[in-house]
Amino acid sequence: MQDAYQTLIFPDVQQMLQEQDLPGLAAFCGVVHPAAVAEILEELDDSQVWTVLDQAADQLRVEIFEFISLRRQTELVESLDDARLSHLLEWMSADDRVDLLSRLPESRREGALRVIAQAERNEIRRLLSYDEDSAGAVMTTEYASLPASITVQDAISRLRLQAPNSETIYYVYILGEDRLLEGFISLRELILARPETRLSEIMQRDPIRVRATEPRTVAAQMLARYNFIAVPIVDDGDRLVGIVTHDDALDVVQEEATEDAYLQSAVAPLEDTYQETPLNVVLWKRGVWLLFLSVVALMNAHVIDHYRLSTTTEQATPVTTGLTSLILLFLPLVMASGGNAGSQSATLFIRMFALQHGDSRGGQGSSIDNSLVLREVLIGLCLGAGLALMDFTVAWLWFGRTVYESSVIAATVVTVVTLGTSAGTFFPLLFRRLGMDPAIMSNPLIAAMIDVLGVVLFYEIGTIVLG
Amino acid sequence: MQDAYQTLIFPDVQQMLQEQDLPGLAAFCGVVHPAAVAEILEELDDSQVWTVLDQAADQLRVEIFEFISLRRQTELVESLDDARLSHLLEWMSADDRVDLLSRLPESRREGALRVIAQAERNEIRRLLSYDEDSAGAVMTTEYASLPASITVQDAISRLRLQAPNSETIYYVYILGEDRLLEGFISLRELILARPETRLSEIMQRDPIRVRATEPRTVAAQMLARYNFIAVPIVDDGDRLVGIVTHDDALDVVQEEATEDAYLQSAVAPLEDTYQETPLNVVLWKRGVWLLFLSVVALMNAHVIDHYRLSTTTEQATPVTTGLTSLILLFLPLVMASGGNAGSQSATLFIRMFALQHGDSRGGQGSSIDNSLVLREVLIGLCLGAGLALMDFTVAWLWFGRTVYESSVIAATVVTVVTLGTSAGTFFPLLFRRLGMDPAIMSNPLIAAMIDVLGVVLFYEIGTIVLG
Repeated sequence: MQDAYQTLIFPDVQQMLQEQDLPGLAAFCGVVHPAAVAEILEELDDSQVWTVLDQAADQLRVEIFEFISLRRQTELVESLDDARLSHLLEWMSADDRVDLLSRLPESRREGALRVIAQAERNEIRRLLSYDEDSAGAVMTTEYASLPASITVQDAISRLRLQAPNSETIYYVYILGEDRLLEGFISLRELILARPETRLSEIMQRDPIRVRATEPRTVAAQMLARYNFIAVPIVDDGDRLVGIVTHDDALDVVQEEATEDAYLQSAVAPLEDTYQETPLNVVLWKRGVWLLFLSVVALMNAHVIDHYRLSTTTEQATPVTTGLTSLILLFLPLVMASGGNAGSQSATLFIRMFALQHGDSRGGQGSSIDNSLVLREVLIGLCLGAGLALMDFTVAWLWFGRTVYESSVIAATVVTVVTLGTSAGTFFPLLFRRLGMDPAIMSNPLIAAMIDVLGVVLFYEIGTIVLG
Repeated sequence: MQDAYQTLIFPDVQQMLQEQDLPGLAAFCGVVHPAAVAEILEELDDSQVWTVLDQAADQLRVEIFEFISLRRQTELVESLDDARLSHLLEWMSADDRVDLLSRLPESRREGALRVIAQAERNEIRRLLSYDEDSAGAVMTTEYASLPASITVQDAISRLRLQAPNSETIYYVYILGEDRLLEGFISLRELILARPETRLSEIMQRDPIRVRATEPRTVAAQMLARYNFIAVPIVDDGDRLVGIVTHDDALDVVQEEATEDAYLQSAVAPLEDTYQETPLNVVLWKRGVWLLFLSVVALMNAHVIDHYRLSTTTEQATPVTTGLTSLILLFLPLVMASGGNAGSQSATLFIRMFALQHGDSRGGQGSSIDNSLVLREVLIGLCLGAGLALMDFTVAWLWFGRTVYESSVIAATVVTVVTLGTSAGTFFPLLFRRLGMDPAIMSNPLIAAMIDVLGVVLFYEIGTIVLG
C-alpha cells in the first residue's frame, strides 16, 4: 500500500524538480514520512537529491538523510565541501553520524571534523574508536537522563527540554555522580506516578545494562529477551555512555542473519545489500570461496586417483585414460562447482527477498530488476571462467591429462557454473512469483539438480571433444 | 553478566523451594525481572514452577508466565483444570494468549473458553481465526486509543486509565466512528504540546497501517523501515483491530531468518527451538528432505548408467561390474547424503548459537549441552540407517547390483551420514570455542570435507567387502 502510494508520488516529484517548484518540494518533504521521502530520493541523482533536501529545514533534512542507505549517503556527501558536510554532521544523530564518518576516507573525515566544535568532536572520536561489531558502535549518545532526587513533576518538565536531543524519552536513566548508572524509569511509570513523588522512590534500581565493548549481538539479545525499547550501555566504570534502541536491535538482528546466511553458503559478508554491491566486489567475495572449495575438490580427485590405481582387483589394468576415468575423477569437482555457485545465487536472492520492504510474496514494492538477473548470469559466466581456468591448468599440469581432456573439464565447469547461478536465481524467483516461499528451493535441492546437469554435460561435451 | 547473576540466584530458589519458603519466593518474583524469573523457571519441574508462580500476584504471575517458552507453557497448563486455565488466560495479553490457545488440543481450548466471558471469548476466536503467518496473528488488541476532539490534557488523563490494559501508551491511535483509524499521536508529542491543544490539531493524519490479512513480515518490515515502536493493524474496512509492537517485530524477524536458514539447508521448519524439539520430530523434519534429495541423486546414478553404457568409444566393453563402476555410479549419492546431513547439522547449530541469549562467542549463558552433541550423533546414525536402507533396496532391485555391492553402498552411506552430522556439529562448536564466527564453517566447506571422506570410505569398505 505504501509502495503504491510511492509509485503515485514519484512522477510528481520529478515534475516539481523539472519545473524547479521549490515550495512544492518543501511541502513534499514536510508531509511525507522521512523514510518514504528517502526511498524516493534513492531513485534520483546527486544534484536532484540535494535540490530536494535543501528545501527542508535542518532538522527535517537530516531526518530524511538518515533514512537513505549508508552507501548512498557516502556518495551524496562527496559533492559537499567540508563546511556543509560538518553542518550536516552536527545535525545528525550520534550513531548515524559515526556510521557515515567511518565510511569516509581519512582526509575527508579529518577535514569535516576540524570544523566541528571541540566537545562534539571528542565524542565522535570516542564513538569511532569502538570495534565495528561492539555495542558501542551501534549505540547513540542521545539518551534522556535525570537525577534521582527530583520529583515526578519536575522530571516531566525536564524531559520536555531534553526531548529534542533524545532518541527516546520513553526510557529515562537515573544517573549519580560522574554519570554512574543508578536506576531506570519509564515515561509510562512517570505518567502514572503522583506528581510530588521523588524518582528515587519509584525508580528501578540496578537496571540491566550492557558494556560498550561487548558484542552488539548481546545488546540486541537483551532487547529481544526483555522486550525493552532501549538498553543502557555502560563503560568499564559502569558510567552510562549511550543506549541501543529497538530499531538498532532490529537492524543488528537482520544484519547478523544476513551475514550468517551468506557465510553458510560460502559468500564472504558484504558491506552493502547485494543489489548495491559493485560487480568486482561480488566476484571477489564469491570467487575466493569457490576457488578454495574447488581446491578441496581437486584434492578429492587426487584421492580418487590414488585409490583407482591401487584397486586393481577387478580388472587386469585399471582405467587410466578415456572419458570414464576423467568423469570418475573430476565429476565431484564439476558437481561441487555448479552446486556451490548455484547455492550462492539462491541464498543471495532469497535473502534479498527477505530484506525487501513490503510483501515478500511479490508485492508492488518488491519487483526484482531484470538487470539484476542478467547481472547474475554474467557473474556466473565470470566465476565459471575463473574456475575453469584453474581446473584446466591443474588437470593438465598436475594430473597429466591431455589438453583435450583438460578442455572438456574446463568447458563443463564454465557451463555448469553459469547454469548453476542461473538456476539459483530462476527457481527462487519462480517460487516467489507462484506465491510460495522461495526458500523452499534449498541449496541442496539446487545442488542436486545441478548434479544431474553436470553428469549430462560432462558426458555430452566429453563425447563431442574426445569421441 | 545477567547470566552470571542468574547462576548465583538459582541455588537460592532451589533452597527456598525445598524449605517451602513461600515469602522468599514471593520476594524473588517481585524483585527479579520477569524475563529472568522465567528463565530460572525453565530449569524447574511443573509443580515447582506453579509453587513459585502462585506466590506472585495475578498480574505479575502472568507477566512471568508470558516470558516462558511456548512449548513449556503448553506443558505447564496441562496440570491446570479449566477454571484455573481460564483465569490465567483472562490475565494474559491478547497475542500471547492466542499463541498458547492455538497450541492446545481442541477439547482443552473449548473447555477453557467456555468459562471466559462472552465478549472476551469472541475476541479470542477472532484472533484465532487469522492465518498463522499473518499480521493479525502476531498483533495485540491492547492498544491505546483516543478520540480526536479532546485536549492534550484530557488525553494524558485518559491514557493513565488505559495504561494498565495497553501494551504500550507511547503510541496512541485516534479513532473515529466505528473504530475507523483517523490519526496517530505519540506520547512524546503529547508531552511536548500545550495542554489545551486539541488532538485533531496536532495528530498525524492517515498514518501508515498494515492490513491484518497481510503477511506478518510486512508489519515487521514497516517497523524496521520507519523505526516505529508499533504499527497499527486494520481490517478490510480500515477499522483499527490491533497493533504489532517492536518486540513482536524482533521475534518475527528472528523466526523468519531461522525458518529461511533451515529451509535453505533442507530442514523443514520447526515449531520450537532445535533443542526443545523431540527426537522423532527432528528425524522426520530432516529425514523427509534427505530422502527426497537421495531420490534425486539416485536418478542421477540412472543418468550416469545410461551414459556409461552408451559411451563405448574408448573400450570394447564398458565397465559394468566391479568397484569402479559402483563408485562411478553411486559416489554422487554418497557425497550428497553425507554433505546434506552435515549441512543440516551445521545450520541447526549455527542458528542455535545465533539465537542464544548473551555472548554468541561462548559466554556463560550459552553453554551447549554435551547431551545435545550426543543426540546429534544419534540422529546421524538414524538418518544414515534410513537412507542406507532405501539405497540398498534401490541398488539391489532397481540397478540389479549384487547383495554385496548393495551392502557396500549402504554401509558407506550410514558411515558418511553419521560422520557428516558429527562434523557439522563439531566444527561450528570448535570455531566458536576458538572465538571465531562458527558460520565460517559453511555448508559447502563441510560438504567438501565429507566428499573426500566419502571417497576414502567407499573405496575402503568396497575393498573389504568385495576385494
